[in-house]
Amino acid sequence: MIFSSKLIEDAVQEFSRLPGIGKKTALRMVLQLLSMDKPEVDEFTGAVSRMRHGVKFCKECHNVSDSDICVICVNPGRNRRQVCVVESLRDVIAVESTGQYAGLYHVLGGILSPLDGVGPEQLNITSLCERVKNNEVTELIMALSPTIEGDTTVYYIARQVKELPVTITTIARGIAFGGELEYADEMTLAKSIAKRLPIENYVTMK
Amino acid sequence: MIFSSKLIEDAVQEFSRLPGIGKKTALRMVLQLLSMDKPEVDEFTGAVSRMRHGVKFCKECHNVSDSDICVICVNPGRNRRQVCVVESLRDVIAVESTGQYAGLYHVLGGILSPLDGVGPEQLNITSLCERVKNNEVTELIMALSPTIEGDTTVYYIARQVKELPVTITTIARGIAFGGELEYADEMTLAKSIAKRLPIENYVTMK
Repeated sequence: MIFSSKLIEDAVQEFSRLPGIGKKTALRMVLQLLSMDKPEVDEFTGAVSRMRHGVKFCKECHNVSDSDICVICVNPGRNRRQVCVVESLRDVIAVESTGQYAGLYHVLGGILSPLDGVGPEQLNITSLCERVKNNEVTELIMALSPTIEGDTTVYYIARQVKELPVTITTIARGIAFGGELEYADEMTLAKSIAKRLPIENYVTMK
Repeated sequence: MIFSSKLIEDAVQEFSRLPGIGKKTALRMVLQLLSMDKPEVDEFTGAVSRMRHGVKFCKECHNVSDSDICVICVNPGRNRRQVCVVESLRDVIAVESTGQYAGLYHVLGGILSPLDGVGPEQLNITSLCERVKNNEVTELIMALSPTIEGDTTVYYIARQVKELPVTITTIARGIAFGGELEYADEMTLAKSIAKRLPIENYVTMK
């Protein structure tokens, strides 16, 4: 692409570094910003800059936060006995958006993957064990990806806390609500039959 | 979506104002920016801010420019007798990227569309007529959308300059190179047969 303005070219270049954004999409965004009023664009750049410089990570659960301890950890209405262990911030947002979970979180910052050089030291596992040891946590809900790496991470954490009085559970796997049986993969379908639920449970889940 | 940080929420909000960006994509971009080093993010916001505050519009052709007259208009190597009339900056970039056009441009800033309240006063048509009158322009190449609005705009401009010694042409319409006949719409196919070319022209075009 040939631009007749270095300023436009630089902005397009910066946008196309973002995930999933090619040159054409970047140009579309830059032209949109160009058509916006200057104060609006200042608002845009200001929000991005404030976000990057201002965001902290919660000292308790490693979630993003505007203060040292995040709004979820300081909320007295949350069940402090349950901790949902997730891979990333995105998972916290996904679970929070369901509005159905009232416990706390622990963001690992990834999952064990020796091939990619991610060992236990790279993840927030030590601080998780400390939380279980020092607080009244009675259940760790593992909400990790159903991959070999995810399962390895669950297994590793389970071993680390096996001497402590804590129950470890994982989120249920099965056919999605609204999912059609014929499109489900064999593994999920087989597991969902093996782990079938009494009909009373099904009614309660709805 | 529920965020545990107002700063993240604000940044996602700003990104989702851009065209084609929903909340989830915006979040992906924000998390990418969050994972980048602070100087890199400053580079990003700086480029956007400099772009919006620094970009000018060429006094000659209304293209974007870093100075009063754009690099295309000041280039002595360009053919000043040909002016390609386009709707927007994006079209200038598209034509320039072909590397096959050596004339000048004129950016209208839209096309005539009375229903949307776009009349001749909203477009850069007066300045186009001035350019034709005062300069040595001998050909206006209309590269507008093949819609009713585009055709109306071509017709309107043609009427404005009909007393002046200038030829008006439009870019060729037809089946795209690599396009399959069976997928072409009837209108394009019919026109491409009606406006068929002698075989010598075809060979030269390749």
